[in-house]
Amino acid sequence: MSKFWSEAIKDLQPYVPGEQPKKDQIIKLNTNENPYPPSPRVIQTLKDYPAEKLRLYSDPDSTELKQTLSEHFNLPSDHVFVGNGSDEVLAHTFMAFFRHPEPLVMPSMTYSFYDVYCNLYDIEARHIPLGEDFRVNLEEYPSKNGGIIFANPNAPTGVAISLNEIEALLKRNTETVVVVDEAYVDFGADSAVSLIKSHPNLLVIQTLSKSRSLAGMRVGFALGQPELIAGLERVKNSFNSYPLDMLAIASASEAIRDQEYFEETVRKIIDDRDWTSTQLTSLGFRVLPSSTNFVFAEHKSATGTDLMQHLRNQNILVRHFSKPGIENFLRITIGTRSEMEALIQGLKSFPQLSC
Amino acid sequence: MSKFWSEAIKDLQPYVPGEQPKKDQIIKLNTNENPYPPSPRVIQTLKDYPAEKLRLYSDPDSTELKQTLSEHFNLPSDHVFVGNGSDEVLAHTFMAFFRHPEPLVMPSMTYSFYDVYCNLYDIEARHIPLGEDFRVNLEEYPSKNGGIIFANPNAPTGVAISLNEIEALLKRNTETVVVVDEAYVDFGADSAVSLIKSHPNLLVIQTLSKSRSLAGMRVGFALGQPELIAGLERVKNSFNSYPLDMLAIASASEAIRDQEYFEETVRKIIDDRDWTSTQLTSLGFRVLPSSTNFVFAEHKSATGTDLMQHLRNQNILVRHFSKPGIENFLRITIGTRSEMEALIQGLKSFPQLSC
Repeated sequence: MSKFWSEAIKDLQPYVPGEQPKKDQIIKLNTNENPYPPSPRVIQTLKDYPAEKLRLYSDPDSTELKQTLSEHFNLPSDHVFVGNGSDEVLAHTFMAFFRHPEPLVMPSMTYSFYDVYCNLYDIEARHIPLGEDFRVNLEEYPSKNGGIIFANPNAPTGVAISLNEIEALLKRNTETVVVVDEAYVDFGADSAVSLIKSHPNLLVIQTLSKSRSLAGMRVGFALGQPELIAGLERVKNSFNSYPLDMLAIASASEAIRDQEYFEETVRKIIDDRDWTSTQLTSLGFRVLPSSTNFVFAEHKSATGTDLMQHLRNQNILVRHFSKPGIENFLRITIGTRSEMEALIQGLKSFPQLSC
Repeated sequence: MSKFWSEAIKDLQPYVPGEQPKKDQIIKLNTNENPYPPSPRVIQTLKDYPAEKLRLYSDPDSTELKQTLSEHFNLPSDHVFVGNGSDEVLAHTFMAFFRHPEPLVMPSMTYSFYDVYCNLYDIEARHIPLGEDFRVNLEEYPSKNGGIIFANPNAPTGVAISLNEIEALLKRNTETVVVVDEAYVDFGADSAVSLIKSHPNLLVIQTLSKSRSLAGMRVGFALGQPELIAGLERVKNSFNSYPLDMLAIASASEAIRDQEYFEETVRKIIDDRDWTSTQLTSLGFRVLPSSTNFVFAEHKSATGTDLMQHLRNQNILVRHFSKPGIENFLRITIGTRSEMEALIQGLKSFPQLSC
């Protein structure tokens, strides 16, 4: 604490991201990164970029990227907002729409940054418990709210809900903003983008960090009707005129354009996720049905802490949350097939699992 | 306006950055960019960067860059904060230190984004008029304040004040944070960095957009004692864990390391600024003494709007502010010598100036 800090920041409880180890020779399955490099076309774009142009400011409107996303999603470009990672897009979203007299409603278990933003912007949150099988149960979300946010598929569970469930919510909740955070949607869930045209209060947020292999480049975006996008632009232009650098705009645009590479790498990850789930099940794990690039699994007898430590001793990193109710689950990112084979071998050497 | 917007964002008055024209063949002297490309070592670093690593998240602590800045300024690395351009660093600074019961004090004429941040974070501002010759007169800053911010050299005037004046302020103002925004300091003012050791409430903010030719890469930083840096980290980690992408970290670090190129390009800009000032004076302009990479000048008879338009018709962009008291000034970025020659020629063809 410092006497120089604004009163409100003394109570902040910052988000803690997964570890980014500096050493190599680690099998890193802890932060849901894509095991495949960015598209070769992205790498070529960066190699060919006329870096002498970096003396100039980047385009404050990121026009190339907005245009590319607009074409990709078949939405007008005034339906597109971009930011420095989907975390920045989320932060601006909380500022723009959720500082409301009624509390923001969200799942009790979801991306933990949502509570951090509430804290940052002094927003009251109301948490609705997950339903059966760790599902987000939107039918229990109260009609009196200052906005609704949930991830689909949800994190850290990996479980997706259907578009029908989201549409039903949107039909009865028309007066406040509903945000669907689709960070993982490309790995097997249905996107709510198709609902934007008929729902002016729907904002869909996605990222290039997962399915487009660009976590290190920091690009996320939001899609919604122009009045929501204009609200985000007001906040963005009161915060930082140029959130995306020139190389981020160029590489993200090319990543969106290379649909073939995207589909090929996503398919491999889905295949290896299904293989991994089968293997884990046969080792005595309960594996939640995943629509993401990770699996969330608990063993019938071994504790989450012990398993995480056992893997760590073999230089395999997975993520573990000490939150009650999920303290025995591991969140395991899907890497390459050989990485997943190493994970399974690593688990097999744990006493209770070596049968 | 939209019913979906948070009440507070309805009153936001976003910052309007200088124009970034999409067409080439323009002499762009309107946004204080460096006329020289980034250091050849920076360009090489980008060409050689192993872009396949972009699938991973960037280092949330930007360790390489903090370490490089730490060595450059001879300060421990816990004295360094980095962000996505100095605008983001400023935004976090307002959030962290200036939400205070007393008003924030700043010059009546300075970087106009400060008022935008006040609006964004609901901070009351008190503006102190500039003194004689457009100087920031710190001796008139009230002892009762919720913080003090000023730019040195100031913008858009280009005028610098001395370190003695800043030190005198710090000696009498010890209970709230004093921020010196040194975006342009490398072009001829004395940096307050040397005062950090003896003043725990001093935060110095700089950018790589001007003197390091990296506007398109979006990197800024703050230097101060650890309790201020820790306050900024709390806000940053409640907003976006990874504000700098991998290429921004790598290129900014290399730009700081290439001191020789930095000195050479800064020297050329200072020489051409002095040449330009002399030329403008002989054309009947009053030119404020500049310690920046721009000059702020008004003509004895021609209006600012007319001159700006006259230059624009010749594809030369300069910046003009309609604010009362400076409405006849032009803010002219120092480009290459041939660009400045074109500017002077362009002005000479204006009726009142062609003698």
